Amino acid sequence: MSPQPDLPEPAHPNIDSMLSRKFGKEVANYFSGSPLNRVSFLRPDHAFLSQALKHPSATFLAFQNLEPLISSPSTLAPLKFSEVEPIIGKDPFEKTEEDVIKEYNSEAYIPQVVFLGLDERKESGEDGEGFDYKGRYKGRPWFAVDVTPVKSVKEAAEGLIKKLTERGLDFSKGRMNLSLSAQEAAIYAEARHLLDWNARNPFCAACGYPTLSINGGFKRTCPPKDVAPSITQSDRPPCATRTGISNLSFPRTDPTVIMAVVSADGQKILLGRQKRWPQYWYSTLAGFLEPAESVEEAVRREVWEESGIHLGRVVIHSTQPWPYPANLMIGAIGQAIPGGEEIHLGHDAELEDAKWFTAEEVREALRVGTSGLGEAAGSEYKEGGLRLPPKTAIANQLMWAVVNGFASGAPMI
Amino acid sequence: MSPQPDLPEPAHPNIDSMLSRKFGKEVANYFSGSPLNRVSFLRPDHAFLSQALKHPSATFLAFQNLEPLISSPSTLAPLKFSEVEPIIGKDPFEKTEEDVIKEYNSEAYIPQVVFLGLDERKESGEDGEGFDYKGRYKGRPWFAVDVTPVKSVKEAAEGLIKKLTERGLDFSKGRMNLSLSAQEAAIYAEARHLLDWNARNPFCAACGYPTLSINGGFKRTCPPKDVAPSITQSDRPPCATRTGISNLSFPRTDPTVIMAVVSADGQKILLGRQKRWPQYWYSTLAGFLEPAESVEEAVRREVWEESGIHLGRVVIHSTQPWPYPANLMIGAIGQAIPGGEEIHLGHDAELEDAKWFTAEEVREALRVGTSGLGEAAGSEYKEGGLRLPPKTAIANQLMWAVVNGFASGAPMI
Repeated sequence: MSPQPDLPEPAHPNIDSMLSRKFGKEVANYFSGSPLNRVSFLRPDHAFLSQALKHPSATFLAFQNLEPLISSPSTLAPLKFSEVEPIIGKDPFEKTEEDVIKEYNSEAYIPQVVFLGLDERKESGEDGEGFDYKGRYKGRPWFAVDVTPVKSVKEAAEGLIKKLTERGLDFSKGRMNLSLSAQEAAIYAEARHLLDWNARNPFCAACGYPTLSINGGFKRTCPPKDVAPSITQSDRPPCATRTGISNLSFPRTDPTVIMAVVSADGQKILLGRQKRWPQYWYSTLAGFLEPAESVEEAVRREVWEESGIHLGRVVIHSTQPWPYPANLMIGAIGQAIPGGEEIHLGHDAELEDAKWFTAEEVREALRVGTSGLGEAAGSEYKEGGLRLPPKTAIANQLMWAVVNGFASGAPMI
Repeated sequence: MSPQPDLPEPAHPNIDSMLSRKFGKEVANYFSGSPLNRVSFLRPDHAFLSQALKHPSATFLAFQNLEPLISSPSTLAPLKFSEVEPIIGKDPFEKTEEDVIKEYNSEAYIPQVVFLGLDERKESGEDGEGFDYKGRYKGRPWFAVDVTPVKSVKEAAEGLIKKLTERGLDFSKGRMNLSLSAQEAAIYAEARHLLDWNARNPFCAACGYPTLSINGGFKRTCPPKDVAPSITQSDRPPCATRTGISNLSFPRTDPTVIMAVVSADGQKILLGRQKRWPQYWYSTLAGFLEPAESVEEAVRREVWEESGIHLGRVVIHSTQPWPYPANLMIGAIGQAIPGGEEIHLGHDAELEDAKWFTAEEVREALRVGTSGLGEAAGSEYKEGGLRLPPKTAIANQLMWAVVNGFASGAPMI
């Protein structure tokens, strides 16, 4: 079993607030807890981005085909501006956005750069004088850069990758091989989600024409002109995304519900399994929230569709960003109504099996049977026992909350 | 002031469950609480859709430019199949999806039809024998249909609209004029969100080619061929959305955070106002959740960016679908940390003002000062007093929870 990454502390002072006393400590899931201040309102300001990029403390996470550069499965390997400059150029933020849009050329390849935020941790100034914009926004600037060797950056990127390989660095080989610290995981999640969104959406869904990444990678705009040499008519037809604000111009995040289902008497937990999972492996049910559903309705619909169980009350527990590719996991606990506990897998074909487990079985499996999907369980695990996802998965946190709270009567959330 | 629409009851039996006893009654916001079972797994089944469409009890909500047909601002005016048949044809679900994709012609206009679900209310069988699919899925089928008079349906749609006008029916004139009952509001929200999504996304964001609506309006696929007469090369280039499952093929819902902010001592509430709002009108802060944020992090970021306030603990209260165009409102209550209560509007330029109000001021305004945005406040309202959104807005519910729970010490959620 790979080392279990640490979970993030909630990113706020641990004060004895009224909300904390009333609802218990906040559950901060893996991929949340970023130490970066995104200063989202500064993203359209090219002077800010340009100064941040060129500051000596600026830090660049390089990605190849959406996989981050790492020095070990648990450590990202950030680069300096001088290292990525051959790929992204002297200053990709030199011009105003207005000018960049005016000069849009759909045939010119622009490697994706994403501004992630300002690192406000005390130690972030270690590489020299801390970055300071207008005396108010301080901290080490973080960026993500796509260094995949394609098109006009092929040679430069291949050169960089060769140098990095010689230094013993490599790109991660899939998410199964990542076990980053909580804070690095959160920074990586932001970078991956944004790089993926930009790569996945090169065209405008409203008009079909290619789009341009602006706002430090947080917006794609549909330029009214395209000066590409091979295009005879540089003016493009009108596009709905250019009038007013369109959600299509902004990153997509898909709300997903994931829920621990308890029996009407609160003593059993419903878990399901997919065919492709290892033997004895079960987890909580989950599914995408649909248009015009509340979270509570989506939880009841998904549980009925996948397992036939009828739920009554649903309570939201905590949330988790999940950058594969773009999910917000909304974790909930739902309780079956009396008489609504019969399992029926015939509605939807998603699960191979669903079963009621006792709190004791789940408690024991949380102790000895957790691991990443491709990994072996711990040394105390006995063949045939229940296997469960690791604590970096919100599913694990939900089950933990149920068996250590709901079934025992102690505060659950 | 228009009559306040009723709020939905939670769509589950009101049992005395352990979760209810622990967390209080579930808050069901306006636009949630649909009486329809979406049977989402049946949407790819053309035989199901075809039978549902042609069943005598089938019910059609007609929309023109995303506005629903109504008989009064508080009542939808559903149509029968025979009325919409001149527009959608004898059976838009006659062929399998496989065949529909094979015969895709990007130049043929297909008016959008959305399957909304089966109405499981007892009274839903009133128009004849209840619909029954495979002895298991029962209830009156609901559909939404776009009857906007354009392209090949121009004449037929104009004919229908003329007839409807003669019957005294009309299309709604903007959301301000809608005050539907809770259940009709939820059905309308589903229809509007789906029609909008289909209309807003005619092209594939991955490859730029036009797409085709399938799955009863819940999926857009990028066909590999286009037999349109004017296209010389019917085979299209490969598209990433055709291999595996792509989120781009499914409806987009944007998670949005909206939060009541209480002071460190729990006695005051922070509200903000936008310039375009009527005088004295304030509301809770809100903003879009960003990629790789938990809800709690998004709440803290938005509040700091818009008001300068630093939050500690954040608790999720309830959620609300908001089909303008595609939001999931996630309602939260957050508490300022001691020393973090100073208002600064200079980060982001979104708010014209933000202010701390006492619980008493907000409680009084909830009693006398609420209305829809375009409407007058109630008769007891005195000029100069605080004005707030109506109880159909989750902002109102959050403020209500704070002044009737948090500040008084009673259970809040």
